[in-house]
Amino acid sequence: MYELLTRDGFAKRGKLQTIHGVVETPVFMNVGTAAAIKGAVSTEDLIDIKTQVELSNTYHLHVRPGDQVIRQLGGLHKFMVWDKPILTDSGGFQVFSLAGLRKIKEEGVYFQSHIDGRKIFMGPEESMQIQSNLGSTIAMAFDECPSSVTSREYIRESVNRTTRWLERCRSEMKRLNDREDTINRQQMLFGINQGGVYEDIRIEHAKQIAEMDLDGYAIGGLAVGESHEDMYRILEAVVPHLPVDKPTYLMGVGTPANILEAVERGVDFFDCVYPSRNGRHGQVYTNRGKLNLKNARFELDERPIEEGCDCPVCRKYSRAYLRHLFKAKEMLAMRFAVLHNLYFYNTMMTEIREAIEAGNYAEYKKKKMAGISGRDV
Amino acid sequence: MYELLTRDGFAKRGKLQTIHGVVETPVFMNVGTAAAIKGAVSTEDLIDIKTQVELSNTYHLHVRPGDQVIRQLGGLHKFMVWDKPILTDSGGFQVFSLAGLRKIKEEGVYFQSHIDGRKIFMGPEESMQIQSNLGSTIAMAFDECPSSVTSREYIRESVNRTTRWLERCRSEMKRLNDREDTINRQQMLFGINQGGVYEDIRIEHAKQIAEMDLDGYAIGGLAVGESHEDMYRILEAVVPHLPVDKPTYLMGVGTPANILEAVERGVDFFDCVYPSRNGRHGQVYTNRGKLNLKNARFELDERPIEEGCDCPVCRKYSRAYLRHLFKAKEMLAMRFAVLHNLYFYNTMMTEIREAIEAGNYAEYKKKKMAGISGRDV
Repeated sequence: MYELLTRDGFAKRGKLQTIHGVVETPVFMNVGTAAAIKGAVSTEDLIDIKTQVELSNTYHLHVRPGDQVIRQLGGLHKFMVWDKPILTDSGGFQVFSLAGLRKIKEEGVYFQSHIDGRKIFMGPEESMQIQSNLGSTIAMAFDECPSSVTSREYIRESVNRTTRWLERCRSEMKRLNDREDTINRQQMLFGINQGGVYEDIRIEHAKQIAEMDLDGYAIGGLAVGESHEDMYRILEAVVPHLPVDKPTYLMGVGTPANILEAVERGVDFFDCVYPSRNGRHGQVYTNRGKLNLKNARFELDERPIEEGCDCPVCRKYSRAYLRHLFKAKEMLAMRFAVLHNLYFYNTMMTEIREAIEAGNYAEYKKKKMAGISGRDV
Repeated sequence: MYELLTRDGFAKRGKLQTIHGVVETPVFMNVGTAAAIKGAVSTEDLIDIKTQVELSNTYHLHVRPGDQVIRQLGGLHKFMVWDKPILTDSGGFQVFSLAGLRKIKEEGVYFQSHIDGRKIFMGPEESMQIQSNLGSTIAMAFDECPSSVTSREYIRESVNRTTRWLERCRSEMKRLNDREDTINRQQMLFGINQGGVYEDIRIEHAKQIAEMDLDGYAIGGLAVGESHEDMYRILEAVVPHLPVDKPTYLMGVGTPANILEAVERGVDFFDCVYPSRNGRHGQVYTNRGKLNLKNARFELDERPIEEGCDCPVCRKYSRAYLRHLFKAKEMLAMRFAVLHNLYFYNTMMTEIREAIEAGNYAEYKKKKMAGISGRDV
């Protein structure tokens, strides 16, 4: 399903064939937590900004509207009217970060809904069942995502449990994909590498899961509070032990600089809420640094957010208008800023793919880094 | 500039030629108070939902971002990227409804900004200057809009002042349109009839302003708390005294039923915040009654808001998805509901024009009324 087209150093340029179309990698997946991209962005808008993969959250959709509801409505693609690939996370991360009081057992996790306090149990089988009900293109394995400051002893125990959970996810998905009434019987499974900031645990775990011949491999439990240096160190240690001929996904990352660094270390799938969250707060990305659109200096600025940018916003609207919309608290401000930011990320991924193909990724990265860390005038 | 194409009873079917294109009437103008339609609706969206005229508020734009700012940026059309007609109100209504402490004098009104409490003076000349800076297609005269419970004595005095203000508006607009550096030198002026619920005062005022040969005539000071019966009674009394060969605009009205009634009484311009405000609260219009999209009964409803509706939302999305978006507090919910509602209004105006042309307006109105006052199942 995944074809490694070319490499430039460790950087991978690949192509993932799915039942919902091809994903050209490296790719940045656009986050639509509750089956919608925040900022009033529609799926028509996503086409305009070159989105390849939409990412939704299993936990959120399980608690609202409920995965059974979405299943009855024909699955997530039909529900949100998006026919390209969708990746769903396993719910694990949200269970550990959002849910109230929780208890982790061998069978799974007991916790309370952050919406209504209702008691929920989720284990590997439940996560697979929910994702199967959603009918996503790619399902993520149910894992434990411990905090980055957890002790070595706990991490080792947790990683072993995550491995046992992965086996159960695989069996359950096989069972579900064999059923005739399953929405997407070609659903793919990505396993998740854990191990905190401990290289040896990470590597041992990577070797174990690499043998399971999954559809893709993610690195989880990073970008959860550790330093960027720790993150890059772990990537350098662990990526070489994950199959090069499978997708390599760094979950929840990150800034444009993080992505550029991680691509260089062999990662080719990304997702992050930064572009949409920052956009909603008026922060937009350009190749000459970030801008805060609320800034008074844009009052009479007739230029687009970035000269030469071909996004639906920069093609028509001025910084002055965007600043006004933010000051007047018009929702349109958020929509425009989110559209620009996601376009910026998606376009950067296109540039990255071209640079890898041309064999000049290092040069491209250097130039891009210099631009984005600049200060726009 | 205005051509009366045909009549069906009192109902008018007209065409207003403007420097920004033709307006086919009866028309519903879509309200974009602060140079944006609330609900993250862009001007591209407005094209999709068949908007003919956008309406912005002089008072809001004067206090933020400032009409001088918009003038320096080339005017409202360029600012918000909309090349079709724009009508700006005079600021009068907002001064009387939104602003803090105010004092009405012969020269104009002293009041405080609702944004920062700053003292502002606005009279006929200032209102015309601001609207000229905005460069709208149609400017409204600066009038006093007294509450509907004001005494007869006060109303008479106020209406006389409004007439004197209208003379000053006309002189000032002439002066401004003669200037070479004016953004829209073809700006049109609509006068406003006042007089509360007193037919004789209304009629006397209508006769006075009708002689001034303005580009159009509005009926103001209705839909401000009086009963619908009072409103229809006043329309029946006053519309025959306004020039039939000029646009007839009922300000701030209203529900679909109000519009149907007013068209029958000779009105052909409308504006109202209902479709966008109701949409943002989950209330949507159909030809079988209104729906509240938050309702639990839509959880599994795969139908569009209205079967057969060709709006950008009904073409693709289900009630179930819209309900979910509202429950999950996704901004996209509001955008979709606003788009549908404005499309519903704009389409009703198309139907109205066709019915007048076909000479069967009474029949159309009866059928439409029965539909919209129904209860959807």
